[in-house]
Amino acid sequence: MKQNRIVVRAPATVANLVCGFDVLGLALDHPYDRIAITLLDERVIRITHDDEYGLPADPEKNVMGVALLALLKEVKEVAGFDVACTKGIRPGSGIGSSAAGAAGAVVGANKLLGNRFSKNDLIRFAMEGEKIASGARHADNVAPAIYGGITLIRSMEGPDIVQIPFPELYVTIIHPQIEVKTADARQILKTRVELKDAVHQWGNVAGLVSGLFLKDYELIGRSLEDVIVEPQRCILIPGFEEVKKDSLRAGALGGGISGSGPSLFMLCKDPSVAAEVETMAKERYNKMGLPVLTYISKVNEYGVQEEVMPIVGAVS
Amino acid sequence: MKQNRIVVRAPATVANLVCGFDVLGLALDHPYDRIAITLLDERVIRITHDDEYGLPADPEKNVMGVALLALLKEVKEVAGFDVACTKGIRPGSGIGSSAAGAAGAVVGANKLLGNRFSKNDLIRFAMEGEKIASGARHADNVAPAIYGGITLIRSMEGPDIVQIPFPELYVTIIHPQIEVKTADARQILKTRVELKDAVHQWGNVAGLVSGLFLKDYELIGRSLEDVIVEPQRCILIPGFEEVKKDSLRAGALGGGISGSGPSLFMLCKDPSVAAEVETMAKERYNKMGLPVLTYISKVNEYGVQEEVMPIVGAVS
Repeated sequence: MKQNRIVVRAPATVANLVCGFDVLGLALDHPYDRIAITLLDERVIRITHDDEYGLPADPEKNVMGVALLALLKEVKEVAGFDVACTKGIRPGSGIGSSAAGAAGAVVGANKLLGNRFSKNDLIRFAMEGEKIASGARHADNVAPAIYGGITLIRSMEGPDIVQIPFPELYVTIIHPQIEVKTADARQILKTRVELKDAVHQWGNVAGLVSGLFLKDYELIGRSLEDVIVEPQRCILIPGFEEVKKDSLRAGALGGGISGSGPSLFMLCKDPSVAAEVETMAKERYNKMGLPVLTYISKVNEYGVQEEVMPIVGAVS
Repeated sequence: MKQNRIVVRAPATVANLVCGFDVLGLALDHPYDRIAITLLDERVIRITHDDEYGLPADPEKNVMGVALLALLKEVKEVAGFDVACTKGIRPGSGIGSSAAGAAGAVVGANKLLGNRFSKNDLIRFAMEGEKIASGARHADNVAPAIYGGITLIRSMEGPDIVQIPFPELYVTIIHPQIEVKTADARQILKTRVELKDAVHQWGNVAGLVSGLFLKDYELIGRSLEDVIVEPQRCILIPGFEEVKKDSLRAGALGGGISGSGPSLFMLCKDPSVAAEVETMAKERYNKMGLPVLTYISKVNEYGVQEEVMPIVGAVS
């Protein structure tokens, strides 16, 4: 029997990974969006949101809708989708909320269409969704959301995506409740950088990739250094320096701004360290009087996945 | 019995590897310098050169001498060295001639002193030698000369050197007989670069490192692209564009300027392709009326090595 309904979990993602601005990203086990998609035999996209974020239902203004419209452009037969989303990832958190929607929608739709599109096709479609959310067509959240694990976007042509193997890693996400618009975070970046800083940075990028391949936690830690973007952007995030220092003292390998913020992320070898980082960050922001949300997750190996035993209301 | 004489082979090296300016390098099996070192019981360094290059014999002006002086500063007992070098690597070729001398001298001396220094110590000493040759303290030739294989200098602090595993690779070196001074080649580089170019470059650096780990020749080839340094420097090397195009057409994975030139290098999966690249380059420079030297070598896994069965006059 042909499957005409699917429920997927679309994971949060961390873009940049400190030194890998615009090229590296990783997927988390949670938080995630839960997206139910039904294949229709008419050319229409209907979107409903079962959450409090007030995201637009108009498919042309909704990241899932735009991504699915891009996909449907390459589908010859008459088809459409009914999409019901429960967002577990807060919009504007800097952990790939829009990418999760876009990636989840097209991965689910592709499954209902018999998996006719490649992962790279799906990235292309999902990037169209990303574009309406952030103003730029970028793949550093969409790629890990679709591939899972840790991904390198070597080039946007293709796109040319490389899956980087990795050792066991725990990620603490720290989301101070302030707003940083992706477009603003892009705008403060200088368009030119010192060659010597660029060299330093690609030494770190090569070190981080090597450390992941070699499962060398110390090398990973030493390489988690950003001399270009973080010094410019960290001023947008109150408490950034303090939380980072606390985390390193607690034993985190390293970390920094997740995507364009405001979330921070810290990579840890041990879950106990990840928990300690979380505790210290909460204390720090409590002292500052700034509300904060936190998550601890392993790196997600699979990306968007079908929910095997959907339990209604499981995600809240 | 304590060894008081050693003969080492110090290999040529290729710095930068296209996208990895100042951080990546590889060692070649040949050409190489042959350096005979005798441990003396007086604090003196005597240098003789058995070649036609007219290199200075004064230890304070000779790369081997300066490197050995740096080493001796950390040796408490009275010791010195007699050094006799037959250079197989032409000075000014862009394949690490001075680095080979400096690396060979300190690795050999360290062996005679009971291997008391670490490889990173030896890199520090050898860089002092490099400095008098190029005016800058850099490790991108010295590191692969000492470690062998393909090396990443993640940071000059330490230095932090990572050995990158690699698949079978053949390197064609093409050395048009023109002079490009390292200092000049550095000077033409703009000190600032576009952020978007830097991002493109570190995507390629990460791609190259991943390709080497994964033994993915196609990814290696796609990543051998330099959008920052090569466009500025290639004008110093007549025939660069043509030779590169010929090489890619012949099936080379990619390549570019070796170090700061004037040598070019091309990486190939098959020895037959490496030979075809060599033939085409010779034809190209013959047509241009420019003398050219060429070499084909595998990547050298060991770096500076003791010559097990020294045959007098074997290197010419």
